[in-house]
Amino acid sequence: MQPTSRTQVRRTPQRGEYDLDVIYQILDEALVCHVGFVSDGQPIVIPTAYGRVGDRLYIHGSPASRMLRSLQTNLEICVTITLLDGLVLARSAYHHSMNYRSVVIFGAATTVTDPEEKWQALKAFTDHVVPQRWSDVRPPTSQELKGTLVLTLPLTEASAKIRTGPPLDDEADYQLPVWAGVLPLQLTTTAPKPDPRLPSEITIPNAIENYTRTTSCISLKHL
Amino acid sequence: MQPTSRTQVRRTPQRGEYDLDVIYQILDEALVCHVGFVSDGQPIVIPTAYGRVGDRLYIHGSPASRMLRSLQTNLEICVTITLLDGLVLARSAYHHSMNYRSVVIFGAATTVTDPEEKWQALKAFTDHVVPQRWSDVRPPTSQELKGTLVLTLPLTEASAKIRTGPPLDDEADYQLPVWAGVLPLQLTTTAPKPDPRLPSEITIPNAIENYTRTTSCISLKHL
Repeated sequence: MQPTSRTQVRRTPQRGEYDLDVIYQILDEALVCHVGFVSDGQPIVIPTAYGRVGDRLYIHGSPASRMLRSLQTNLEICVTITLLDGLVLARSAYHHSMNYRSVVIFGAATTVTDPEEKWQALKAFTDHVVPQRWSDVRPPTSQELKGTLVLTLPLTEASAKIRTGPPLDDEADYQLPVWAGVLPLQLTTTAPKPDPRLPSEITIPNAIENYTRTTSCISLKHL
Repeated sequence: MQPTSRTQVRRTPQRGEYDLDVIYQILDEALVCHVGFVSDGQPIVIPTAYGRVGDRLYIHGSPASRMLRSLQTNLEICVTITLLDGLVLARSAYHHSMNYRSVVIFGAATTVTDPEEKWQALKAFTDHVVPQRWSDVRPPTSQELKGTLVLTLPLTEASAKIRTGPPLDDEADYQLPVWAGVLPLQLTTTAPKPDPRLPSEITIPNAIENYTRTTSCISLKHL
């Protein structure tokens, strides 16, 4: 994708990444996005779940949500997704950093009115959280469909920013007797907690028992 | 803290939390915040590291950063911090949710000019990433201090939103043969990666070897 004046990474431009596969991989691995919009001149940033279908991002919620009501009006929004991959521990305080992969998307959100698109978006939300979860659970009723507002944003103006690798210290500092390196971070699961009202004969699906968030690593030129 | 019209949690108000201890605990446990600001009418959301000293939040970066340059002008910003605690897997697609703790802060950022406050803020950034790291590393030079822009935001208009516990299904759905419960999530570390240029005689500090992100749990009325 060609960067626009809004998506061109200016600070540390070598960390900019405009390859759609890379952008999609970050979107598919992360679970939460931060939606920024302007309300009465005031910026507001709200964390929310999302789903991706092809080149479109979907967010959803109650029609009573202040955020979703605002966004329905074709407002320009900014959606940012951040994966934290490690703490970069340098020999100097100044060169401490983090390894991360982030995506910033600009655009105007629109309400999804087509029933089939809405259905596919809801499927994407559910399967984004746990693969194939949609086929295991009760699908939405027509009442629930009415009670869910789905907004969509095209992924046409997006960029990723990625930092990987060890700290970059000043040359003179490499002789300091300070431990330096990367402490890798990852989002992991602990033992699933069955619902207190779950009958004991219902066994846990494979997708939950062997859950992992990290998607298979595609070739990242930075890695 | 008394909620204001901006920080009052309106959707699912029972999830709103205005206790400063709870807000501080979330800020101290998380590593990255999302800063929202308005530039030429356009919302922009940027992930960045931060530090807390008492009732003030600090962010920092290069004086060349577009974001920091914009924020210096006493702009209203919104800073949002989100910790993801679990996937809430219901029997219906509709009731899927996430357990999370988030904080939203509103206010105007100002540039830190007092050298002692700036020094304490830089110490807070470093110690926020790894406890006591500041005392192990080379402190900033006067050149580096000049090359770092530090902004501060008072934590006077902030609220937290917290969801905990199992899924809340429709009564009729509890009899469905669907596994339901919570898949807890946490940010964990894997084995530290020493810098390729680190002399082998430098051993890893305790604070890095036994690193854990979760702060001791204070009493949360929701838990």
